[in-house]
Amino acid sequence: MGKGRIEAFSDGVIAILITIMVLEMKVPEGVSVRDLIPVIPVFLSYVLSFLYLGIYWNNHHHMLHTVEKVTGGMLWANLHLLFWLSLIPFVTHWMNVNHFSRVPTAFYGFVLFMSAVAYSILQGRIIASQGAGSILKLAIGKDWKGKISPIFYLLAILLAIEETRWAALALYVFVAIIWLIPDRRIENVLKTLERKEKGG
Amino acid sequence: MGKGRIEAFSDGVIAILITIMVLEMKVPEGVSVRDLIPVIPVFLSYVLSFLYLGIYWNNHHHMLHTVEKVTGGMLWANLHLLFWLSLIPFVTHWMNVNHFSRVPTAFYGFVLFMSAVAYSILQGRIIASQGAGSILKLAIGKDWKGKISPIFYLLAILLAIEETRWAALALYVFVAIIWLIPDRRIENVLKTLERKEKGG
Amino acid sequence: MGKGRIEAFSDGVIAILITIMVLEMKVPEGVSVRDLIPVIPVFLSYVLSFLYLGIYWNNHHHMLHTVEKVTGGMLWANLHLLFWLSLIPFVTHWMNVNHFSRVPTAFYGFVLFMSAVAYSILQGRIIASQGAGSILKLAIGKDWKGKISPIFYLLAILLAIEETRWAALALYVFVAIIWLIPDRRIENVLKTLERKEKGG
Amino acid sequence: MGKGRIEAFSDGVIAILITIMVLEMKVPEGVSVRDLIPVIPVFLSYVLSFLYLGIYWNNHHHMLHTVEKVTGGMLWANLHLLFWLSLIPFVTHWMNVNHFSRVPTAFYGFVLFMSAVAYSILQGRIIASQGAGSILKLAIGKDWKGKISPIFYLLAILLAIEETRWAALALYVFVAIIWLIPDRRIENVLKTLERKEKGG
Repeated sequence: MGKGRIEAFSDGVIAILITIMVLEMKVPEGVSVRDLIPVIPVFLSYVLSFLYLGIYWNNHHHMLHTVEKVTGGMLWANLHLLFWLSLIPFVTHWMNVNHFSRVPTAFYGFVLFMSAVAYSILQGRIIASQGAGSILKLAIGKDWKGKISPIFYLLAILLAIEETRWAALALYVFVAIIWLIPDRRIENVLKTLERKEKGG
Repeated sequence: MGKGRIEAFSDGVIAILITIMVLEMKVPEGVSVRDLIPVIPVFLSYVLSFLYLGIYWNNHHHMLHTVEKVTGGMLWANLHLLFWLSLIPFVTHWMNVNHFSRVPTAFYGFVLFMSAVAYSILQGRIIASQGAGSILKLAIGKDWKGKISPIFYLLAILLAIEETRWAALALYVFVAIIWLIPDRRIENVLKTLERKEKGG
Repeated sequence: MGKGRIEAFSDGVIAILITIMVLEMKVPEGVSVRDLIPVIPVFLSYVLSFLYLGIYWNNHHHMLHTVEKVTGGMLWANLHLLFWLSLIPFVTHWMNVNHFSRVPTAFYGFVLFMSAVAYSILQGRIIASQGAGSILKLAIGKDWKGKISPIFYLLAILLAIEETRWAALALYVFVAIIWLIPDRRIENVLKTLERKEKGG
Repeated sequence: MGKGRIEAFSDGVIAILITIMVLEMKVPEGVSVRDLIPVIPVFLSYVLSFLYLGIYWNNHHHMLHTVEKVTGGMLWANLHLLFWLSLIPFVTHWMNVNHFSRVPTAFYGFVLFMSAVAYSILQGRIIASQGAGSILKLAIGKDWKGKISPIFYLLAILLAIEETRWAALALYVFVAIIWLIPDRRIENVLKTLERKEKGG
C-alpha cells in the first residue's frame, strides 16, 4: 500500500477546511472603515484556525514522510484525525457568532484537544508499524510539544467555562506559537540517517 | 491509461463530500450546553455519513490497488458511484431538518442502496477487465459483506416507511460497523501473491 | 514542464464543481413522497450537469494522456476551459429556480457552447504543440462530435428563446448521449502505435 | 522533502478558491435578459479575480518547477501566500455587494498587495535555499513585474480611497494584463541549462 492516496486525500480535506472558513466570514454590512471593526475578532479567529490547520498539515506532511507502508489501522487513524479537524470551521463559526462566549470557546478547545489526541493515535499507529528502530519514534524524541498541548487545551477549556475566556483564547494562541517555532526533529533525524548510510 | 487521475478525482470528490456536510451543520442558536442537545442527533448523523464516506474511500483505495489498466467502462462506473455518494450530504441534511421522519430516513437508505449497487458494478467492471486470474475476484472471495449490505438497506427502507425508523437507523449503523471490522482480504491476497513470486 | 499539476488542478476544479451542485439542491420542504415531486426537475437537471462535467473530465483525461510537454499556452487554454465549466453550477441553479424559463435555459446552452469552444481551443493548442505527427490529431480524426455539438447548442439556444424550451432541453440531453456513447479513438490510436513500436 | 505535497496542497486550495467565487454569485432575480444587467459588474469582478488566481497558480507552478528540496521555511511562506489568496473571494464579494464603493475597492487592492508581498517572500525563501547559482534568481532576472505590481496596488488603494475608484479598478485590470503577457523567463532559463548540460 503506497502512501500517495492517504496524502492526497488528507491534502484535499485540509485544503477544503482551510478555505471553507472564508465562506463563513460574513462581509461587513457597511462600507466605511469603521464597519470593519466588528469583523476584526472574526478575522483573528479565522487567522488562528488557519494557523492550526496549517500546523496540522505541516506536521502531517513531516510525519507521513517517515512512513513507507500504509496499514489499514493508519487509514482509520487518519480518518479519525480528519474528522476532528473537520469540526474546526464549525466551532470557529459558533465562537464567532456568539462573540466568544463561554460554552463555544470551551468547545473550540475541546475540538483542538480531540484533534491532538487523534494526532497522537495516528503517531502511535505509525511508530507501532515501524517496529523497534522506528524513525518517527527517534525523530519525535520525548515529544514534549505533543504531550503538553492537550494539557494546555484542557486548561483553556476550564478557563473558558470559568468566565475567563480571554485567558482561554490566549492559551489557544500560545499553543499555536509553540508549534510555529521551527521544529527540525524529523528533518534532522532523516539527515543523520542519510549521512550514516553514505558513510557506512 | 494510468490510474493516477481516477484516484485523484475520486479522492477530490470524496474529500469535498465529507467536508461539505460540516457546512450543513447549523451552529446552535444559544450559547449554553443545553442548546447543544438538539444538535446531537444532527451530529450523530454527520458521524454516520462521515463513516460511510470513509468506508467507501477506504474500500475504493484497496480495490483500485489491484487495478493496473483503467478502461473507459471503469471511468463511467466510477463516476456513477461518485454520483450516488454525492447525494449522501443531501439526504443526511434532509433527514436532519425533518428529525428523522419516515420518507427522508427511507431515502437515506435508498441512496446507500444505490451506492452499494454502483460499487458492485465498478467491482464487476474491474474483475471483468482482469480476466480469468483476477486478483480482485480472488481477494473478495464470496464477498458476503457486499452481498448482504444491499439487503440490509432494503430492509431498513421498509422499516423506515413502516414507521419504525429507529430500527432503520440502527440497521444503517449496523452495516457501517460490519464494514469497519478490519477486512484484510485484498491485503492478504496481495501478500500471498508477493510471497509466491519471491518463492518461485 | 510535466503535466502532473495541470491534471491535478483540473481534477480539483472539476471535482469541486460536480459536488458544489448538490449544495444548490434545496431539501424538499415536506416529508411526504409527494413533496419530492417539485424536486424531480431540479434533480434531473443536476443529473444532466453532472453528466456534462463527467464527460468533460473523461475527455480531458483522454486528451491530456497524449500530451508530453505542457506549454504556457496550454495552461491558459486550460484555465479558460475551467472558467466556462465553473459557470455550469451557476446556470444550472438559475435554470432551476425559474422552472426552466426562456432566458436561463438559453444561457445554460450558451455556457455549454462556450465550454465546447474552450475545449476546441485547448485541443488546437495541444495539436499545434505536437507538430506534424500529432497523436491527438490522429486520434480525433474528423472530430464530428466536437464539430456538431456547438451547432446543436446554438440551435438549442434559439429553441429556448423561441419558447420551445423543452425542445432545447431535449437537445442538451441528446448531445450528452452522443458523448456518452463510448468513443475509443484515443485508446485505439495509442494501442496501434504501441503495437507498431513493438512490431518494428 | 519532496515538493509533491506542497504542490498538491496549493493546487487544492487555489482550485477551491477559484470555484468558491461562483457560489458567491447570486442568480438574477428575474428571467429576462434585462435582469442580467446588474449581474454584469459582479460577473466582471469574478472574471478579474479568476484571472488573478489563475496568474498566481500559473506563476506558482513555474516557480516550484525550479525547486528541488522543500524546506520548512518554504512550507510556511507558501501557507502565508495561500492565506492572502484565500481572502480574494471574500473581498471580491464585499466589493460586489456594495457596488464597488470606496473602502471595499481599496481593500481588494490591499489583499492583492499582501498577496504580492507573500509571493515575493516565498520567492526569496526559494532563492535563498538554492544558494549562489540559484536557477530561480537567474530566471526572474530584475523581476520588474514583481517589483512594479505592489506599487501599482498601493496607487490603486489611494485612488480608491480618493473616490476615483474606477481608476483603481482600471489599475487592477492593468496589472492582471501585465502578468497575462507570456513571460518565458523560467522556461527559457531551464531550456538554456538543459542545452548546456547536453553540450558540455
